[in-house]
Amino acid sequence: MMTTRSNPAVIPAASDDKSLEKPFIKCLVRLIRAEDTYGRWRGKCDVELLDNFTVPEDQRRAIPIIGDPDPYVLWRLKTFYTAVGLGKERSDLLVSRTMEISQEGFGRVLLTTKRLVLLSKTLRDVHRFGFNNLRKCAKTGTQLVSDAVQVIEAYPDLARS
Amino acid sequence: MMTTRSNPAVIPAASDDKSLEKPFIKCLVRLIRAEDTYGRWRGKCDVELLDNFTVPEDQRRAIPIIGDPDPYVLWRLKTFYTAVGLGKERSDLLVSRTMEISQEGFGRVLLTTKRLVLLSKTLRDVHRFGFNNLRKCAKTGTQLVSDAVQVIEAYPDLARS
Repeated sequence: MMTTRSNPAVIPAASDDKSLEKPFIKCLVRLIRAEDTYGRWRGKCDVELLDNFTVPEDQRRAIPIIGDPDPYVLWRLKTFYTAVGLGKERSDLLVSRTMEISQEGFGRVLLTTKRLVLLSKTLRDVHRFGFNNLRKCAKTGTQLVSDAVQVIEAYPDLARS
Repeated sequence: MMTTRSNPAVIPAASDDKSLEKPFIKCLVRLIRAEDTYGRWRGKCDVELLDNFTVPEDQRRAIPIIGDPDPYVLWRLKTFYTAVGLGKERSDLLVSRTMEISQEGFGRVLLTTKRLVLLSKTLRDVHRFGFNNLRKCAKTGTQLVSDAVQVIEAYPDLARS
Protein backbone atom coordinates (compact mmCIF):
# COMPACT_ATOMS: atom_id res chain seq x y z
CA MET A 1 0.00 0.00 0.00
CA MET A 2 2.97 2.34 0.34
CA THR A 3 5.27 3.94 -2.17
CA THR A 4 8.88 3.09 -1.48
CA ARG A 5 10.66 6.36 -2.08
CA SER A 6 14.41 6.23 -1.67
CA ASN A 7 14.61 9.89 -0.90
CA PRO A 8 17.93 10.85 0.71
CA ALA A 9 16.31 14.06 1.96
CA VAL A 10 14.38 11.93 4.45
CA ILE A 11 17.11 11.49 7.00
CA PRO A 12 17.67 15.21 7.75
CA ALA A 13 13.94 15.37 8.55
CA ALA A 14 14.78 13.21 11.55
CA SER A 15 15.75 16.45 13.23
CA ASP A 16 11.97 16.69 13.62
CA ASP A 17 12.28 14.09 16.34
CA LYS A 18 10.36 16.16 18.86
CA SER A 19 7.30 15.57 16.67
CA LEU A 20 8.01 11.84 16.76
CA GLU A 21 7.37 11.87 20.49
CA LYS A 22 3.88 13.34 20.07
CA PRO A 23 1.09 10.86 21.00
CA PHE A 24 -0.67 11.55 17.71
CA ILE A 25 2.38 10.68 15.61
CA LYS A 26 2.99 7.55 17.68
CA CYS A 27 -0.59 6.54 17.00
CA LEU A 28 -0.13 7.16 13.28
CA VAL A 29 3.03 5.05 13.19
CA ARG A 30 1.27 2.24 15.05
CA LEU A 31 -1.53 2.31 12.47
CA ILE A 32 0.89 2.23 9.53
CA ARG A 33 2.85 -0.66 11.05
CA ALA A 34 -0.40 -2.54 11.66
CA GLU A 35 -0.88 -2.72 7.89
CA ASP A 36 2.55 -4.19 7.31
CA THR A 37 1.26 -7.76 7.07
CA TYR A 38 4.39 -9.24 5.57
CA GLY A 39 6.93 -7.29 7.59
CA ARG A 40 8.35 -5.56 4.54
CA TRP A 41 8.73 -2.26 6.38
CA ARG A 42 10.25 -3.81 9.50
CA GLY A 43 13.66 -2.41 8.59
CA LYS A 44 12.30 1.10 8.05
CA CYS A 45 12.46 3.70 10.78
CA ASP A 46 9.40 5.74 11.76
CA VAL A 47 10.63 8.78 9.86
CA GLU A 48 10.73 6.81 6.64
CA LEU A 49 7.18 5.57 7.13
CA LEU A 50 5.90 9.04 7.96
CA ASP A 51 7.63 10.44 4.91
CA ASN A 52 4.46 9.51 3.01
CA PHE A 53 2.51 12.14 4.90
CA THR A 54 4.91 15.00 4.27
CA VAL A 55 4.92 16.49 0.81
CA PRO A 56 6.63 19.87 0.31
CA GLU A 57 4.29 22.63 -0.81
CA ASP A 58 5.83 23.08 -4.26
CA GLN A 59 5.54 19.32 -4.96
CA ARG A 60 1.93 19.34 -3.77
CA ARG A 61 1.10 22.25 -6.00
CA ALA A 62 2.46 20.32 -8.99
CA ILE A 63 0.01 17.42 -8.48
CA PRO A 64 -2.85 17.72 -10.99
CA ILE A 65 -6.31 17.78 -9.43
CA ILE A 66 -7.93 16.37 -12.55
CA GLY A 67 -8.79 12.68 -12.65
CA ASP A 68 -9.19 10.09 -9.93
CA PRO A 69 -7.22 10.69 -6.74
CA ASP A 70 -4.23 8.38 -6.34
CA PRO A 71 -5.14 5.30 -4.22
CA TYR A 72 -2.06 5.98 -2.07
CA VAL A 73 -3.38 9.43 -1.25
CA LEU A 74 -6.74 7.96 -0.28
CA TRP A 75 -4.97 5.43 1.91
CA ARG A 76 -2.99 8.22 3.62
CA LEU A 77 -6.15 10.25 4.12
CA LYS A 78 -7.94 7.28 5.68
CA THR A 79 -4.99 6.47 7.91
CA PHE A 80 -4.68 10.07 9.06
CA TYR A 81 -8.33 10.37 10.09
CA THR A 82 -8.37 6.90 11.61
CA ALA A 83 -5.44 8.05 13.75
CA VAL A 84 -7.44 11.11 14.81
CA GLY A 85 -10.29 8.78 15.79
CA LEU A 86 -7.94 6.47 17.66
CA GLY A 87 -6.44 9.43 19.49
CA LYS A 88 -9.78 9.92 21.19
CA GLU A 89 -10.17 6.34 22.18
CA ARG A 90 -8.02 6.80 25.23
CA SER A 91 -11.41 7.25 26.87
CA ASP A 92 -13.74 4.23 26.81
CA LEU A 93 -15.42 5.37 23.59
CA LEU A 94 -15.40 3.61 20.27
CA VAL A 95 -15.00 6.08 17.43
CA SER A 96 -15.83 5.23 13.83
CA ARG A 97 -14.63 6.98 10.72
CA THR A 98 -16.85 7.30 7.66
CA MET A 99 -15.42 8.92 4.57
CA GLU A 100 -17.11 9.60 1.26
CA ILE A 101 -14.90 10.90 -1.54
CA SER A 102 -16.21 11.47 -5.03
CA GLN A 103 -14.16 10.59 -8.08
CA GLU A 104 -13.32 14.27 -8.42
CA GLY A 105 -11.59 14.33 -5.05
CA PHE A 106 -14.29 16.14 -3.09
CA GLY A 107 -16.04 14.69 -0.09
CA ARG A 108 -16.55 14.52 3.61
CA VAL A 109 -15.10 12.70 6.57
CA LEU A 110 -17.10 12.06 9.74
CA LEU A 111 -15.95 10.77 13.09
CA THR A 112 -18.83 9.56 15.21
CA THR A 113 -19.41 7.81 18.49
CA LYS A 114 -22.92 6.59 19.22
CA ARG A 115 -25.26 9.49 18.40
CA LEU A 116 -22.60 12.19 18.53
CA VAL A 117 -20.68 13.66 15.61
CA LEU A 118 -17.16 14.42 16.83
CA LEU A 119 -15.75 15.72 13.60
CA SER A 120 -17.33 16.63 10.30
CA LYS A 121 -14.95 17.95 7.72
CA THR A 122 -15.40 18.77 4.07
CA LEU A 123 -12.47 17.57 2.01
CA ARG A 124 -11.47 19.02 -1.31
CA ASP A 125 -8.56 18.55 -3.70
CA VAL A 126 -7.66 15.37 -1.83
CA HIS A 127 -5.20 14.63 -4.64
CA ARG A 128 -2.87 17.05 -2.90
CA PHE A 129 -3.29 15.77 0.67
CA GLY A 130 -0.10 16.05 2.68
CA PHE A 131 1.70 18.23 5.17
CA ASN A 132 4.69 20.51 4.69
CA ASN A 133 6.56 18.76 7.47
CA LEU A 134 6.07 16.34 10.30
CA ARG A 135 5.60 19.11 12.84
CA LYS A 136 2.64 20.45 10.85
CA CYS A 137 1.18 16.94 10.63
CA ALA A 138 1.49 16.43 14.39
CA LYS A 139 0.02 19.86 15.11
CA THR A 140 -3.01 19.38 12.84
CA GLY A 141 -3.72 15.90 14.16
CA THR A 142 -3.34 16.88 17.80
CA GLN A 143 -5.62 19.88 17.25
CA LEU A 144 -8.33 17.70 15.67
CA VAL A 145 -8.10 15.23 18.56
CA SER A 146 -8.42 17.95 21.18
CA ASP A 147 -11.35 19.57 19.33
CA ALA A 148 -13.15 16.26 19.37
CA VAL A 149 -12.38 15.67 23.04
CA GLN A 150 -14.03 19.01 23.75
CA VAL A 151 -17.13 17.87 21.91
CA ILE A 152 -17.24 14.69 24.00
CA GLU A 153 -16.90 16.76 27.16
CA ALA A 154 -19.69 19.09 26.03
CA TYR A 155 -22.11 16.20 25.39
CA PRO A 156 -20.95 13.37 27.67
CA ASP A 157 -24.36 11.67 27.87
CA LEU A 158 -24.81 11.52 24.14
CA ALA A 159 -21.37 10.10 23.49
CA ARG A 160 -22.23 7.22 25.80
CA SER A 161 -25.95 6.80 25.05
CA MET B 1 -27.66 6.55 -14.86
CA MET B 2 -30.61 4.23 -15.09
CA THR B 3 -31.12 0.92 -16.81
CA THR B 4 -33.88 1.11 -19.35
CA ARG B 5 -35.68 -2.15 -18.84
CA SER B 6 -38.65 -2.73 -21.11
CA ASN B 7 -40.29 -5.10 -18.70
CA PRO B 8 -43.97 -5.71 -19.49
CA ALA B 9 -44.43 -7.01 -15.94
CA VAL B 10 -44.10 -3.43 -14.74
CA ILE B 11 -47.58 -2.27 -15.51
CA PRO B 12 -49.41 -4.80 -13.27
CA ALA B 13 -47.27 -3.47 -10.42
CA ALA B 14 -49.23 -0.27 -10.79
CA SER B 15 -51.84 -1.97 -8.64
CA ASP B 16 -49.41 -0.90 -5.92
CA ASP B 17 -50.73 2.63 -6.39
CA LYS B 18 -51.48 3.11 -2.70
CA SER B 19 -47.73 3.02 -2.17
CA LEU B 20 -47.31 5.67 -4.84
CA GLU B 21 -49.23 8.09 -2.64
CA LYS B 22 -46.86 7.66 0.29
CA PRO B 23 -44.79 10.80 1.00
CA PHE B 24 -41.60 8.75 1.02
CA ILE B 25 -42.21 7.34 -2.45
CA LYS B 26 -43.13 10.77 -3.77
CA CYS B 27 -39.86 12.06 -2.40
CA LEU B 28 -37.98 9.22 -4.08
CA VAL B 29 -39.63 9.91 -7.42
CA ARG B 30 -38.80 13.61 -7.12
CA LEU B 31 -35.17 12.74 -6.51
CA ILE B 32 -34.99 10.38 -9.49
CA ARG B 33 -36.60 12.94 -11.79
CA ALA B 34 -34.16 15.59 -10.55
CA GLU B 35 -31.35 13.56 -12.12
CA ASP B 36 -33.05 13.42 -15.49
CA THR B 37 -30.99 16.28 -16.92
CA TYR B 38 -31.91 15.67 -20.56
CA GLY B 39 -35.56 14.77 -20.06
CA ARG B 40 -35.08 11.24 -21.33
CA TRP B 41 -37.42 9.78 -18.71
CA ARG B 42 -40.08 12.45 -19.16
CA GLY B 43 -42.32 9.94 -20.92
CA LYS B 44 -41.95 7.35 -18.20
CA CYS B 45 -44.50 7.02 -15.43
CA ASP B 46 -43.47 6.87 -11.78
CA VAL B 47 -43.96 3.11 -11.62
CA GLU B 48 -41.44 2.60 -14.38
CA LEU B 49 -38.86 4.77 -12.62
CA LEU B 50 -39.41 3.01 -9.31
CA ASP B 51 -39.05 -0.36 -11.01
CA ASN B 52 -35.30 0.02 -10.43
CA PHE B 53 -35.82 -0.31 -6.70
CA THR B 54 -37.91 -3.46 -6.82
CA VAL B 55 -36.09 -6.69 -7.55
CA PRO B 56 -37.91 -9.96 -6.82
CA GLU B 57 -36.24 -12.09 -4.16
CA ASP B 58 -35.25 -14.93 -6.50
CA GLN B 59 -33.61 -12.49 -8.92
CA ARG B 60 -31.77 -10.83 -6.04
CA ARG B 61 -30.49 -14.15 -4.79
CA ALA B 62 -29.06 -14.87 -8.23
CA ILE B 63 -26.85 -11.75 -8.18
CA PRO B 64 -23.26 -12.74 -7.33
CA ILE B 65 -21.77 -10.92 -4.34
CA ILE B 66 -18.24 -11.31 -5.61
CA GLY B 67 -16.55 -8.40 -7.34
CA ASP B 68 -17.34 -4.71 -7.39
CA PRO B 69 -20.98 -3.74 -6.80
CA ASP B 70 -22.77 -2.55 -9.92
CA PRO B 71 -22.63 1.29 -10.20
CA TYR B 72 -26.43 1.29 -10.76
CA VAL B 73 -26.92 -0.48 -7.45
CA LEU B 74 -24.73 2.10 -5.72
CA TRP B 75 -26.73 4.87 -7.35
CA ARG B 76 -30.00 3.29 -6.14
CA LEU B 77 -28.59 2.91 -2.64
CA LYS B 78 -27.50 6.55 -2.57
CA THR B 79 -30.83 7.74 -3.90
CA PHE B 80 -32.76 5.65 -1.38
CA TYR B 81 -30.87 7.00 1.63
CA THR B 82 -30.90 10.55 0.28
CA ALA B 83 -34.70 10.21 0.09
CA VAL B 84 -34.74 9.09 3.73
CA GLY B 85 -32.70 12.17 4.60
CA LEU B 86 -34.98 14.43 2.57
CA GLY B 87 -38.02 12.94 4.27
CA LYS B 88 -36.85 14.51 7.50
CA GLU B 89 -36.25 17.90 6.03
CA ARG B 90 -39.87 18.82 6.36
CA SER B 91 -38.60 20.38 9.58
CA ASP B 92 -36.06 23.20 9.21
CA LEU B 93 -33.11 20.83 9.47
CA LEU B 94 -30.53 20.13 6.84
CA VAL B 95 -29.65 16.45 6.74
CA SER B 96 -26.50 15.12 5.10
CA ARG B 97 -25.83 11.61 3.94
CA THR B 98 -22.36 10.09 4.11
CA MET B 99 -21.85 6.62 2.72
CA GLU B 100 -18.68 4.56 2.66
CA ILE B 101 -18.82 1.31 0.71
CA SER B 102 -15.80 -0.90 0.26
CA GLN B 103 -15.07 -2.64 -3.03
CA GLU B 104 -16.43 -5.82 -1.49
CA GLY B 105 -19.88 -4.28 -0.98
CA PHE B 106 -19.67 -3.72 2.76
CA GLY B 107 -19.96 -0.36 4.41
CA ARG B 108 -21.89 2.14 6.39
CA VAL B 109 -24.36 4.91 5.74
CA LEU B 110 -24.77 7.86 8.11
CA LEU B 111 -27.41 10.55 8.17
CA THR B 112 -26.37 13.50 10.29
CA THR B 113 -27.60 16.95 11.13
CA LYS B 114 -25.21 19.26 12.96
CA ARG B 115 -23.77 17.22 15.85
CA LEU B 116 -26.49 14.56 15.85
CA VAL B 117 -26.38 11.17 14.14
CA LEU B 118 -29.90 10.41 12.93
CA LEU B 119 -29.21 7.10 11.29
CA SER B 120 -26.19 4.83 11.30
CA LYS B 121 -26.61 1.64 9.38
CA THR B 122 -24.15 -1.06 8.45
CA LEU B 123 -24.64 -2.19 4.87
CA ARG B 124 -23.61 -5.56 3.53
CA ASP B 125 -24.05 -7.41 0.26
CA VAL B 126 -25.05 -4.14 -1.37
CA HIS B 127 -24.81 -5.94 -4.72
CA ARG B 128 -28.26 -7.31 -3.92
CA PHE B 129 -29.89 -4.08 -2.75
CA GLY B 130 -33.55 -3.91 -3.69
CA PHE B 131 -37.03 -4.51 -2.37
CA ASN B 132 -39.46 -7.30 -3.12
CA ASN B 133 -42.13 -4.79 -4.08
CA LEU B 134 -42.96 -1.12 -3.90
CA ARG B 135 -45.00 -1.54 -0.74
CA LYS B 136 -41.95 -2.97 1.05
CA CYS B 137 -39.82 -0.09 -0.25
CA ALA B 138 -42.31 2.50 1.01
CA LYS B 139 -42.63 0.75 4.37
CA THR B 140 -38.87 0.53 4.96
CA GLY B 141 -38.29 4.14 3.91
CA THR B 142 -41.15 5.49 5.99
CA GLN B 143 -39.95 3.52 9.02
CA LEU B 144 -36.41 4.90 8.68
CA VAL B 145 -37.77 8.45 8.39
CA SER B 146 -39.94 8.08 11.49
CA ASP B 147 -37.07 6.52 13.47
CA ALA B 148 -34.92 9.51 12.64
CA VAL B 149 -37.68 11.96 13.51
CA GLN B 150 -37.83 10.33 16.94
CA VAL B 151 -34.11 10.89 17.36
CA ILE B 152 -34.54 14.57 16.50
CA GLU B 153 -37.37 14.84 19.02
CA ALA B 154 -35.24 13.15 21.69
CA TYR B 155 -32.33 15.57 21.20
CA PRO B 156 -33.87 18.76 19.80
CA ASP B 157 -31.09 21.06 21.04
CA LEU B 158 -28.34 19.04 19.51
CA ALA B 159 -30.01 18.81 16.12
CA ARG B 160 -30.09 22.59 16.02
CA SER B 161 -26.83 23.42 17.83
